[in-house]
Amino acid sequence: MNPDISKERENATFNVEKLTYILDGGIEKTKRRREIQSLVISDPDFQSEDLNFLTRSERYEAAVRKSAQMIVKLRKYGISDPEEIYCYKSCVHRGRSEPLDLHLGMFLPTLLNQASPEQVDTFFIPAWNLEIIGTYAQTEMGHGTHLRGLETTATYDPATQEFVLNSPTVSSIKWWPGGLGKTSNHAIVLAQLYTQGKCHGLHAFIVPLRSMNTHMPLPGVVVGDIGPKFGFDEVDNGYLKLENVRIPRNNMLMKYAKVDADGTYTKPPRDKLTYGTMVFIRSMIVGEAGLALSKACTIAIRYSAVRRQSEIRPGEGEPQILDYQTQQYKLFPLLATAYAYNFVGQYMNQVYHRITGDMSQGDFSELPELHALSAGLKAFTTWTASSGIEVCRMACGGHGYSSCSALPDIYVTFVPTCTYEGENTVMMLQTARFLIKSYRQASAGHRLSGIVSYLNESEFRLQPQTVSSRATLVNGNNLQSLVEAYKLRAAWLVEQAAKSIQQELQRSVSQEDAWNNSSIDLVRASDAHCHYVVVKLFAAKVGEIEDPAVHSVLSTLALLYALQGITQHSGDFLQAGLLSAPQLSQASQTLKQLLVQLRPDAVALVDAFDFRDEMLNSVLGRYDGNVYEHMFEWARRSPLNKTEVHESYHKYLKPLQAKL
Amino acid sequence: MNPDISKERENATFNVEKLTYILDGGIEKTKRRREIQSLVISDPDFQSEDLNFLTRSERYEAAVRKSAQMIVKLRKYGISDPEEIYCYKSCVHRGRSEPLDLHLGMFLPTLLNQASPEQVDTFFIPAWNLEIIGTYAQTEMGHGTHLRGLETTATYDPATQEFVLNSPTVSSIKWWPGGLGKTSNHAIVLAQLYTQGKCHGLHAFIVPLRSMNTHMPLPGVVVGDIGPKFGFDEVDNGYLKLENVRIPRNNMLMKYAKVDADGTYTKPPRDKLTYGTMVFIRSMIVGEAGLALSKACTIAIRYSAVRRQSEIRPGEGEPQILDYQTQQYKLFPLLATAYAYNFVGQYMNQVYHRITGDMSQGDFSELPELHALSAGLKAFTTWTASSGIEVCRMACGGHGYSSCSALPDIYVTFVPTCTYEGENTVMMLQTARFLIKSYRQASAGHRLSGIVSYLNESEFRLQPQTVSSRATLVNGNNLQSLVEAYKLRAAWLVEQAAKSIQQELQRSVSQEDAWNNSSIDLVRASDAHCHYVVVKLFAAKVGEIEDPAVHSVLSTLALLYALQGITQHSGDFLQAGLLSAPQLSQASQTLKQLLVQLRPDAVALVDAFDFRDEMLNSVLGRYDGNVYEHMFEWARRSPLNKTEVHESYHKYLKPLQAKL
Repeated sequence: MNPDISKERENATFNVEKLTYILDGGIEKTKRRREIQSLVISDPDFQSEDLNFLTRSERYEAAVRKSAQMIVKLRKYGISDPEEIYCYKSCVHRGRSEPLDLHLGMFLPTLLNQASPEQVDTFFIPAWNLEIIGTYAQTEMGHGTHLRGLETTATYDPATQEFVLNSPTVSSIKWWPGGLGKTSNHAIVLAQLYTQGKCHGLHAFIVPLRSMNTHMPLPGVVVGDIGPKFGFDEVDNGYLKLENVRIPRNNMLMKYAKVDADGTYTKPPRDKLTYGTMVFIRSMIVGEAGLALSKACTIAIRYSAVRRQSEIRPGEGEPQILDYQTQQYKLFPLLATAYAYNFVGQYMNQVYHRITGDMSQGDFSELPELHALSAGLKAFTTWTASSGIEVCRMACGGHGYSSCSALPDIYVTFVPTCTYEGENTVMMLQTARFLIKSYRQASAGHRLSGIVSYLNESEFRLQPQTVSSRATLVNGNNLQSLVEAYKLRAAWLVEQAAKSIQQELQRSVSQEDAWNNSSIDLVRASDAHCHYVVVKLFAAKVGEIEDPAVHSVLSTLALLYALQGITQHSGDFLQAGLLSAPQLSQASQTLKQLLVQLRPDAVALVDAFDFRDEMLNSVLGRYDGNVYEHMFEWARRSPLNKTEVHESYHKYLKPLQAKL
Repeated sequence: MNPDISKERENATFNVEKLTYILDGGIEKTKRRREIQSLVISDPDFQSEDLNFLTRSERYEAAVRKSAQMIVKLRKYGISDPEEIYCYKSCVHRGRSEPLDLHLGMFLPTLLNQASPEQVDTFFIPAWNLEIIGTYAQTEMGHGTHLRGLETTATYDPATQEFVLNSPTVSSIKWWPGGLGKTSNHAIVLAQLYTQGKCHGLHAFIVPLRSMNTHMPLPGVVVGDIGPKFGFDEVDNGYLKLENVRIPRNNMLMKYAKVDADGTYTKPPRDKLTYGTMVFIRSMIVGEAGLALSKACTIAIRYSAVRRQSEIRPGEGEPQILDYQTQQYKLFPLLATAYAYNFVGQYMNQVYHRITGDMSQGDFSELPELHALSAGLKAFTTWTASSGIEVCRMACGGHGYSSCSALPDIYVTFVPTCTYEGENTVMMLQTARFLIKSYRQASAGHRLSGIVSYLNESEFRLQPQTVSSRATLVNGNNLQSLVEAYKLRAAWLVEQAAKSIQQELQRSVSQEDAWNNSSIDLVRASDAHCHYVVVKLFAAKVGEIEDPAVHSVLSTLALLYALQGITQHSGDFLQAGLLSAPQLSQASQTLKQLLVQLRPDAVALVDAFDFRDEMLNSVLGRYDGNVYEHMFEWARRSPLNKTEVHESYHKYLKPLQAKL
């Protein structure tokens, strides 16, 4: 154990294990997670060479091998709880996506939710047994987030009782679905349904893609891998061009919508059921943002405790770089953010389960709010976490660029969440739509409830406080007063956005143009709304903590999170009259003090995330802090070192001398 | 040609070609650049398969091949002007680093600058003829930016008249030098010189690493590649562990410092000569920031002109995504930034050449200012450009993640500039040191000249204007008044940082602790200083433009750049009393109008950067806008599509069915 890092652990002011239980959601959950992780990590079938040393094809192959073994073992051990499956899977693939993700996460669930009972009989058992390996083919080259624009067609032919599927344009080629390129032999294809000469919009069809014997593509199916990407080497994201591919009528998923033998179409009763899946995935991503940022912080903070560089006081030797104020200022607010997002992720999970409970009893009343919240928070958290991971990486200096740090991999694995499952700017604008609608309702005298209740007139507009009278309101040491400040900022920015739309309309532009011409303000309002929600939830979570030491350190983190946001967005708070210039200076001062206060607990706070070395897979983030020896050892195993002399020397460098 | 993009070009308000000349620095330079690019691009020796489809070893090999051919051809064509060599090289390697970079850019120049005449005779010709291939081994595993901490030792042994080189610790292993891993057979090694029992600090030694016949490592030399990284696949960044490696006395570079046969040490007359190289490289990086961001903007803006998605007005079909205000707000300020940095790069280049002229005549007076400016601007521009590239990438939606967009590659190729040649935070603090020193001089009554003259008392402190009387000062449509606002912001923040140090000292901490405890404020002050310089230089450049149409569009860009900075840092301007809340709202309004104004010129403005398709190598950024067809074609060539069925199917997926 590196003595610097041991000393850090001795100096911690709280019990790390207790905080881990809180993060996991209870001691029992921690225990079970550790059991599952040990099961995987000790399993020789899940070992492989360092993925950084493999080619993309080898990485794909290693992932297929592990996924296949994972399925056998999950059944052998009888692990069937979704959370436990998720934990096992994350451990097998070290948090990466894998080729069977969409089979397990989309194909099987969609069958269960949208197939008629007869269809379940036909398709589910073969899919469960991996004879059918499926993916979910929605996105096309020309359309992602805007689903209505999808161009793939499924035209019903009553003569043969078949659907004829086509990719009528280049841009209609299915593009991006995971596992589509090489792994799957079936896909649920989203296509515009045409029957009796009329288009009925998007519906889902089960399309066989490859022979179940030879795995060769079937006639009319042009399928393959979309090529190398920013990360995601393990996944064969694919393309699919359909050329008059005929499938039986029964391959349209018919639990809700139907096409009869003669081509008569029956529309589904309601859309909100599929809506739920989207909300679920986006809520999950919020937790993933917390997880990814936690990993990056763990690596950067542990490394900053063992890296010594330069000097602060002459003659006193090189300090740990964690002693530099600038390093603390980079890392501690991100650490606070990681905690915030972990707690918000827990909250979203709980709310989702509560609301799906309500929905199963026919109560959809809370869905719009949850939908708006999950869209905005997905965007808010993924943007911050992504840029935060890069800050952590760069805080490790040159070594942060080495694959052995794991930080490049964490970034490229996480950053796609900004784009998939709803492009972030589009998400922010969806939330804004809900906020503006709520604001208008409130202005019209309706009383809002739930998270947007702050938009009720009485909550902010009827309090014409002056800056000076708010002096006590924004008290840097009072978390609740900061929550209040965030709330008022959100209210002010929602109002500004609504006014912008109003002003645009007065210049006699259409509603749609007014919306577009105000979208900068709308995104800003959504952002402020999400920020308020996160600060509020973090503060609420801290309020629940009973252990005094843990409560104390989490309070400090929550204060830091809130104050950092205020200094970063100080213009909003000043412009809205929520803070005076001297108060802002005070906030900056307090923030510096909080950095000092957190310094002794920094390593313990990342230890509490409880990432095993095998999961982090980072030389810089090793628990024992023995970085340099292991970096050297890692480098020596690098593929370019398999021979002392690279063949290019004989081919090009040696002959060059003769030519000069 | 895609009709959408043709139409964009028809709508442009200015002559693209004229702007290209301005960016190149004159019509003659544009012509010569194009000649050189054609020479390379039409040369069959410089073709290769898409690098995205190669393994790292193959990419390294392709780079070695091209570098070897490049050297032969540069000599054949007699290209010897440094700028032209740089242009040729950038074109051969498409802007990427390559294995011979340090041989050409550091080893040869260091020999010329620091070797004695006899040493030049001994080493230069073999190195010129690539018998000696050298690199520059400075950074160690444990030390980067902090040079004094380097641990490698060179101990003089008068008995044999040799230096004995050692890596005394694991952390002293040389780490990161480009070309060190597999390519070089020599290195200039920076080591602590010990002679007659005394350490004389860092000196440079020529150390043979590999046999000049077999290329095998020599005894005592442990050398290899440091393994895969975030990008830089072509470069064999290496490690070097020296175990009692003996080199002749004459292998210490002795133009300035000397060790006599008996071990007597003579110290060099002054340090400032090597200082100059650092300043030069950092100044160059500022231009590189402009270039990298220009590429990213070209790709994102062209793609946004051909990508149609969703709808603004119902029934009017899908708009070009460039018509969304949020998309303009992401891309146009970055476009303005790219222009700003291109111009600042030109300026830094000119200043560097002017000052080196002065220095060669013994006048070092301007060096400290240039040193401070290059350090800060290097950090300021690389941070913004890096995050800007990612914004451009994400503005392309899912396809921005595909390697065919080239955006992932542009990011990983550029982002290391934030860390190498001086870690950015350290750079900002170096600039801050100069600013604080200047501020103190001004406070003590000295009259400052040059770029920091705004710190003179009379310039800002003796103007106790109230916000309201500044109403005309900050006029969103008057670029000069915005330059003034940035100047006052910088002055205010430098003063705040100086006050913070003062306050810390009053709490009776040491100078060093006071500095560290104020470093957040110091970085902020440096940032504001650099921002002011960029706005000022951009405005000055615009003032020089004679063509009215080009002048007009560049004025709009400069205004956008300045206003965007103000809205992003509105808290500073409000807190310093430089702007009132209503003025800030007005700035946001003006900014929106500028987006609308720039919309018709956006494509023409990126066309003016004049990147050939072969240089951009981006399917999304194609000049003709025919994105989708070429994306499909590119994907089909991807390595995973070489066979219809991947071998992992037979190995793992097919057998899996039997196990379930």
